Amino acid sequence: MPEKKYMMTPGPTPVPPEVLLAMAEPIIHHRGADFRRAFVECSDRLKEVFKTKNDVIMFAASGTGGMDSAVSNINAPGDRVIVHSAGNFGERWAKIATTYGLDVCHIKEEWGATPDPAKLADELKKAPAKVVYLTHSETSTGVVADIQALAAVAKEHGALVVVDCISSLGAIPVETDAWSLDVVVAGSQKALMLPPGLAAVSISDAAKAASEEPGRCPSFFLNWPAALKALGNETTAFTPAVTLVLGMNVALGMILDEGLEKRFENHAKLGRACRAGIKAMGLELFSPDEDRSAVVTAAKAPEGIDGQKIVGTMRDKYAVQIVGGQGVLKGHIIRIGHIGYYDIFDILTALSALELVLADMGVEINRGAAVTSALAAFEQ
Amino acid sequence: MPEKKYMMTPGPTPVPPEVLLAMAEPIIHHRGADFRRAFVECSDRLKEVFKTKNDVIMFAASGTGGMDSAVSNINAPGDRVIVHSAGNFGERWAKIATTYGLDVCHIKEEWGATPDPAKLADELKKAPAKVVYLTHSETSTGVVADIQALAAVAKEHGALVVVDCISSLGAIPVETDAWSLDVVVAGSQKALMLPPGLAAVSISDAAKAASEEPGRCPSFFLNWPAALKALGNETTAFTPAVTLVLGMNVALGMILDEGLEKRFENHAKLGRACRAGIKAMGLELFSPDEDRSAVVTAAKAPEGIDGQKIVGTMRDKYAVQIVGGQGVLKGHIIRIGHIGYYDIFDILTALSALELVLADMGVEINRGAAVTSALAAFEQ
Repeated sequence: MPEKKYMMTPGPTPVPPEVLLAMAEPIIHHRGADFRRAFVECSDRLKEVFKTKNDVIMFAASGTGGMDSAVSNINAPGDRVIVHSAGNFGERWAKIATTYGLDVCHIKEEWGATPDPAKLADELKKAPAKVVYLTHSETSTGVVADIQALAAVAKEHGALVVVDCISSLGAIPVETDAWSLDVVVAGSQKALMLPPGLAAVSISDAAKAASEEPGRCPSFFLNWPAALKALGNETTAFTPAVTLVLGMNVALGMILDEGLEKRFENHAKLGRACRAGIKAMGLELFSPDEDRSAVVTAAKAPEGIDGQKIVGTMRDKYAVQIVGGQGVLKGHIIRIGHIGYYDIFDILTALSALELVLADMGVEINRGAAVTSALAAFEQ
Repeated sequence: MPEKKYMMTPGPTPVPPEVLLAMAEPIIHHRGADFRRAFVECSDRLKEVFKTKNDVIMFAASGTGGMDSAVSNINAPGDRVIVHSAGNFGERWAKIATTYGLDVCHIKEEWGATPDPAKLADELKKAPAKVVYLTHSETSTGVVADIQALAAVAKEHGALVVVDCISSLGAIPVETDAWSLDVVVAGSQKALMLPPGLAAVSISDAAKAASEEPGRCPSFFLNWPAALKALGNETTAFTPAVTLVLGMNVALGMILDEGLEKRFENHAKLGRACRAGIKAMGLELFSPDEDRSAVVTAAKAPEGIDGQKIVGTMRDKYAVQIVGGQGVLKGHIIRIGHIGYYDIFDILTALSALELVLADMGVEINRGAAVTSALAAFEQ
């Protein structure tokens, strides 16, 4: 008898059976009428979820492919860009920009910090930048940045704004047009409730114009002008990830049927419940105790306990998969994802498994308090 | 009642139900032990199918992503490379190489020609090239090149050999090591019997060394050194296409259980059957009438008949999906794919639907001859 498995990571996230089954249907041809219909519908639904009038292109790639495209397509080598980071994924922007030979000003805040718009303003005052690269939900720390404020600063100084919304889109409010975000990058395997392998990128007119300037960094597979031209013809430049696109169309339909506002509210409640449970157990939060940080909850590992061991034991003993820290935080924190196809009972499962494992390790925790507190916070 | 659909295109190809169901299982985390086991097994199975001791890396990308990586990772801008093409996909190598600012010598043979090793030798005698880019099965024309002979010429002149085996791998013999192929690029949606969205690339020591030289073209998402380092640690540099990797592991297991030689023999028989049927009907073959060309059979559209209309009618009236010509061949040819999860009865279905449609269009064809001839050729 196989174990009953629980996915509680901030990506991949559980995929609804309806979506899995849609992707298990006999495959269709990507240039035929059936796929075209689904592709166009999916592209339109993406615009609704991104809250934008801009085109949203899809790449058969993981989120990092989308990020790569958002560097190479709008810059020429030597262009000055600013990366404002406070964690692993924010720093990835700097690595990509460096790879393409850009002049990178990296505002590198501590992992776990909330990016400070004043610091961005200071750098922009020193020297203008063509693009500012931001991270909405920093999955490595659980911090959600105030993108509206950061984008306003960048726009004030005439920069293009590119935001990694890979783990935030569909979970918490992302207002592409209202916040003047030129480029928003999303990935399939987070709140969009799909397996990994599909990236979506929204492109403003200004970003599109930048991608058409001569001299920009080379890109072929991830080329925007080719993708945008194909989208105008209701197709893709290269063979798309057919099953993932069909699955995304079903998943976006489910999300829009429920309504984005209701999705956001539910994620906020799940975050509240998770944080209340963690605190009631006697653990210390690492991610901020605020409604905005509703994607992943990070908690400090108890004194003298290796966070990786907690994660490993939860997985091996109870088949509950959470994740530990990355980079400098490895061993020091544990992270529980609660995005996408996820409800309050999943929070209770995660907290209960954590409680059992910590008790087993001899950690002094308040037994039984987490579930009660989580439920109370959820009902508030 | 939905139509019963038949996929007879050279990609995507039908996916076996066992593979579809494996991909529809609850998703697992890409850094967990379960995925690691499947990933390592899949990587090892790829080496068996590629007939190589070289590492084979996987990218969450379509085949074009794999091709892109095989240009950017081993060249610096200005490097002289030769592209030897005779169709749409061969020409794609030249487009990618041009995008990355290489000095491209393009031996551009007519669409439908079989690339001539003597022409390659002539160019290499004029000036050496760092890399020679080849296409094994030119899906746009149905021609399969003699890669062994072409690679021998390239190696004689000290060039790296890179081959697009996207539609050939698993269908017809590909001998990566025995033919000294430095880089072989494959895609999931052809003879490997998966949906699109996963590329596999084998990398020789010499190609690996080239990818580590300073000054090479930028690549981040499709970076080889990062992928190879991760593979050494039994993982991937970025989030993999989890479900496609799991599905590929199942599909490769099926292929290796049957045995590669048996697979090749079956594809050759299917090709023979399809060509015999086409000829018996009274149509003229466009692709060569030879055993090697066992991936896709191309036939000329009858005089005065638009090939696209044949394809469209077969799809709309009988839900049998074949494809037409690309580029300059659009309207002039039709193409029937017979790779992967495909058997003789599928050939009969394709031929019968084609016969019904042509008869309906008033084309004078030999009624009833195609199926009989196809079966006879299959049994030979």
